[in-house]
Amino acid sequence: MQRTQAMTSVQPDWENFYPRPISEKIPFFSSGDGRLYDCLFAQQLNPDLLTGLFRTADKLRKVTQTKDGADHVAGLLSHKRAMLYFVQPSTRTFMSFLNACHILGIKTSEIRDTSTSSEVKGETPEDTVRTFSSYVDMIIMRHPAPGFVEKTAWLMNRTGRPVPIVSGGSGKDQHPTQALLDVYTLYRSFEGDIDNKHIVMVGDLKRGRTVRSLSYLMRNYKGISLSFVSPKEFRMEPDILEFLKRHDIPFTETEDFRGVMKTADAIYMTRIQDEHDKAGESRAVDYSPFYFRKEHLDLIKKTCVIMHPLPRRHEIEVAVDEDPRAVFWRQERNGMWARAALMAHIFGVDGKIG
Amino acid sequence: MQRTQAMTSVQPDWENFYPRPISEKIPFFSSGDGRLYDCLFAQQLNPDLLTGLFRTADKLRKVTQTKDGADHVAGLLSHKRAMLYFVQPSTRTFMSFLNACHILGIKTSEIRDTSTSSEVKGETPEDTVRTFSSYVDMIIMRHPAPGFVEKTAWLMNRTGRPVPIVSGGSGKDQHPTQALLDVYTLYRSFEGDIDNKHIVMVGDLKRGRTVRSLSYLMRNYKGISLSFVSPKEFRMEPDILEFLKRHDIPFTETEDFRGVMKTADAIYMTRIQDEHDKAGESRAVDYSPFYFRKEHLDLIKKTCVIMHPLPRRHEIEVAVDEDPRAVFWRQERNGMWARAALMAHIFGVDGKIG
Amino acid sequence: MQRTQAMTSVQPDWENFYPRPISEKIPFFSSGDGRLYDCLFAQQLNPDLLTGLFRTADKLRKVTQTKDGADHVAGLLSHKRAMLYFVQPSTRTFMSFLNACHILGIKTSEIRDTSTSSEVKGETPEDTVRTFSSYVDMIIMRHPAPGFVEKTAWLMNRTGRPVPIVSGGSGKDQHPTQALLDVYTLYRSFEGDIDNKHIVMVGDLKRGRTVRSLSYLMRNYKGISLSFVSPKEFRMEPDILEFLKRHDIPFTETEDFRGVMKTADAIYMTRIQDEHDKAGESRAVDYSPFYFRKEHLDLIKKTCVIMHPLPRRHEIEVAVDEDPRAVFWRQERNGMWARAALMAHIFGVDGKIG
Repeated sequence: MQRTQAMTSVQPDWENFYPRPISEKIPFFSSGDGRLYDCLFAQQLNPDLLTGLFRTADKLRKVTQTKDGADHVAGLLSHKRAMLYFVQPSTRTFMSFLNACHILGIKTSEIRDTSTSSEVKGETPEDTVRTFSSYVDMIIMRHPAPGFVEKTAWLMNRTGRPVPIVSGGSGKDQHPTQALLDVYTLYRSFEGDIDNKHIVMVGDLKRGRTVRSLSYLMRNYKGISLSFVSPKEFRMEPDILEFLKRHDIPFTETEDFRGVMKTADAIYMTRIQDEHDKAGESRAVDYSPFYFRKEHLDLIKKTCVIMHPLPRRHEIEVAVDEDPRAVFWRQERNGMWARAALMAHIFGVDGKIG
Repeated sequence: MQRTQAMTSVQPDWENFYPRPISEKIPFFSSGDGRLYDCLFAQQLNPDLLTGLFRTADKLRKVTQTKDGADHVAGLLSHKRAMLYFVQPSTRTFMSFLNACHILGIKTSEIRDTSTSSEVKGETPEDTVRTFSSYVDMIIMRHPAPGFVEKTAWLMNRTGRPVPIVSGGSGKDQHPTQALLDVYTLYRSFEGDIDNKHIVMVGDLKRGRTVRSLSYLMRNYKGISLSFVSPKEFRMEPDILEFLKRHDIPFTETEDFRGVMKTADAIYMTRIQDEHDKAGESRAVDYSPFYFRKEHLDLIKKTCVIMHPLPRRHEIEVAVDEDPRAVFWRQERNGMWARAALMAHIFGVDGKIG
Repeated sequence: MQRTQAMTSVQPDWENFYPRPISEKIPFFSSGDGRLYDCLFAQQLNPDLLTGLFRTADKLRKVTQTKDGADHVAGLLSHKRAMLYFVQPSTRTFMSFLNACHILGIKTSEIRDTSTSSEVKGETPEDTVRTFSSYVDMIIMRHPAPGFVEKTAWLMNRTGRPVPIVSGGSGKDQHPTQALLDVYTLYRSFEGDIDNKHIVMVGDLKRGRTVRSLSYLMRNYKGISLSFVSPKEFRMEPDILEFLKRHDIPFTETEDFRGVMKTADAIYMTRIQDEHDKAGESRAVDYSPFYFRKEHLDLIKKTCVIMHPLPRRHEIEVAVDEDPRAVFWRQERNGMWARAALMAHIFGVDGKIG
């Protein structure tokens, strides 16, 4: 977790830095030793890193099954303090991170509402965050403004006392730990072997952040094929399709859910993202052909897994939950373990777990 | 804390389960070894269980008087995480449970306002609770909707990863840990011997949850006699009076507080519950004859204790607080210890305290 | 932390106690052994106490630099529970205290909004606080009502189970730990030697709580000279100027910031306190001559430090932050260490740190 002086001193001004391609920016948010320092982009999660994090997460769950193991793990970072700065409501991600901190023994403080903060006294958001960073060793941040989390990391890295920034969701684009837990769920579902799988993504693909990140990360694996199943109004965006073509990942687009589910190894369901509606356009769409119903359980492979980033509305019938192939509740829990693994990695204690 | 498969697999649907008599439902919320798994009803607190919990509470307060003892106790459940899910305001009960968790070393997360939760994204309350259960080992829940806490426990017990549910107050009826702390206060006040006492309950007996539960639990003791002192508008409800007759517990009803206080061993004061008013009916009632005043201290027995579930308004004059027979502040503190004992019991570490 | 019975039993009624001079009241809030019991007034911080606290704070930061040291310190008060009762918004002070508790291993509960408390059920604030005190070993309290924090401490000291009360800001006057951290920042900036320094205070001196406390505490040091730089509308109040004359501390008042900054050893910047405006009077004042700008860095001594209690608006240009003489971010962090030292002192474990 050492910042190299070289790295921090050559950073240009924010206005010049921000628009650069993510691939160029990644080194600025890494430690000298190849570890992540800040976690901001799904693109930071390269194959080696992913494998390392998954193994750490697996070890964490195994070791903590005994009281002695759990106490050992809770001692690893008992000298660290984190702040969860969540100014955008997200109880799910918040709780997942909070309990991941508890697992590692990290002490936590919470900001969940800026109206109680000094922002009311005319302080800039940058000063507010810097203030909080004074008290802690890490900030886990969720913020609705595009680029705010990244800017915080950038700014911190210019100070004499930086702390790692871990994104818990930034604007409409980046939610790297959601991507991490999704791939971790594939990893666990397929016993570590994600190659050569047929992955079907279903729903509002146009506006879903998770299916976009997951598509990106598929380039890390071999022989993947993707099917995108959505109403025509909510098809996957062209930038992702271009990306897949560039990386030779075959994909199909269809409205015929039943047709593709039979060959799926994983079905990734998503809800309609009507909070992004501009004028209630979601109401005009018949979303029901894109529901997973109990009767579909007879159609899919015995080994196929059904995922969902949750929360769900009606996309998956509740009766499906009791089928062992419904892994979305485990996926939820995987998030906590994957986030604990990420923090153990950033603080460099992942080698001390097993 | 092992759930037996037999127990969970025979549960009928909720609609058939919920209306059953509580006595029939108790086994579904117990562990295989006779311990409580979930704590939902005052009726679960049988005499053996109560005695065990009181002894555990007494041991906890004794052992934690030294730093070594406190650190030992705080290590007992240091590998456990609890969520306090309080969607109905109750700082008092919340803080009592929270600090009980701290005593045992349980790590805590809090939900105190559902508006920040994913319920806004259209998730069902059942899914929300199941999500939170993913991260923790116990849920302590307060909810205004009748049956919601019970339904959560019932639902959890059907999943592959149940966690115990402890009620911190459910609807207008059940608040089992309040009943627990009230009886614990009697136990401590009478040096363990609750039998043969004359207990006077005063105030809004019609709508007070605590006096109802306390009356029920009196069947666990011998030779108890009760006096109910209230304005005629707020007399104890017939179901309780029937219950007492059925169990041969003698009681009187009166408006003459001074008349009965002289022979009381415990006086349980309550405030007027005007939050349950339908049309301001409380305002028409003269509640002042049901106040305990400083001058009454000369009338009561030297050994009589004055209790109150708090918060109070004017039912007990502040000058009374300094009298050693005023035990309501100790009663408050007893709640924390009794709740800690309950959690130690549920997690099966009560044998490791002394 | 022993209360002596003599001390508590002679306390007069609150109405007679409150108006007394602070110097007379200090003994009532001290432990028998000369330690602070409650921390309510900057005036409690005498030179010996300040020196002791600074040394403890220095030791805390040094020892906690290693994991073993941090774990040792986090074990010192692992058996204690504190409540942060902050009914006035103050994220900064709140977080500073919270993380100070984390450093010492103190478990914490939070009240940050009285609307969720039983006050809605008609409870008095005194009863509410006494309730919370039942669960914990210390209350850290911020309250807008003048005297409320002091009254709580006074009231607690009359009960059979008092807990120390630490003020996190009370009304418009007292914020003793802010004074503590300000002097600690001088102490660190001048390598322990505060004597013979020229300290320049700038801004809204009339309504700034911090500059008033800091002026009072200067009587603890020798050879201090002060300059007060403010718009004429916001000059330092006469009571402070009288106090300085009485203690032979020379001071000047001026509007010429540039003129005095050259000889300053410390420049204490403050923002305009327009939340205290009665009718928007701040808007009529040109505050810009009282800004510290980047160009001023060339005018001040190489050893001069620039302080600010934060939050800032425009009083200090952001470009100043990177200069090593800008110590206000360190000042922020000093607050956490000074508060940890204070709590270690109150609980009597300061001797076990080094």
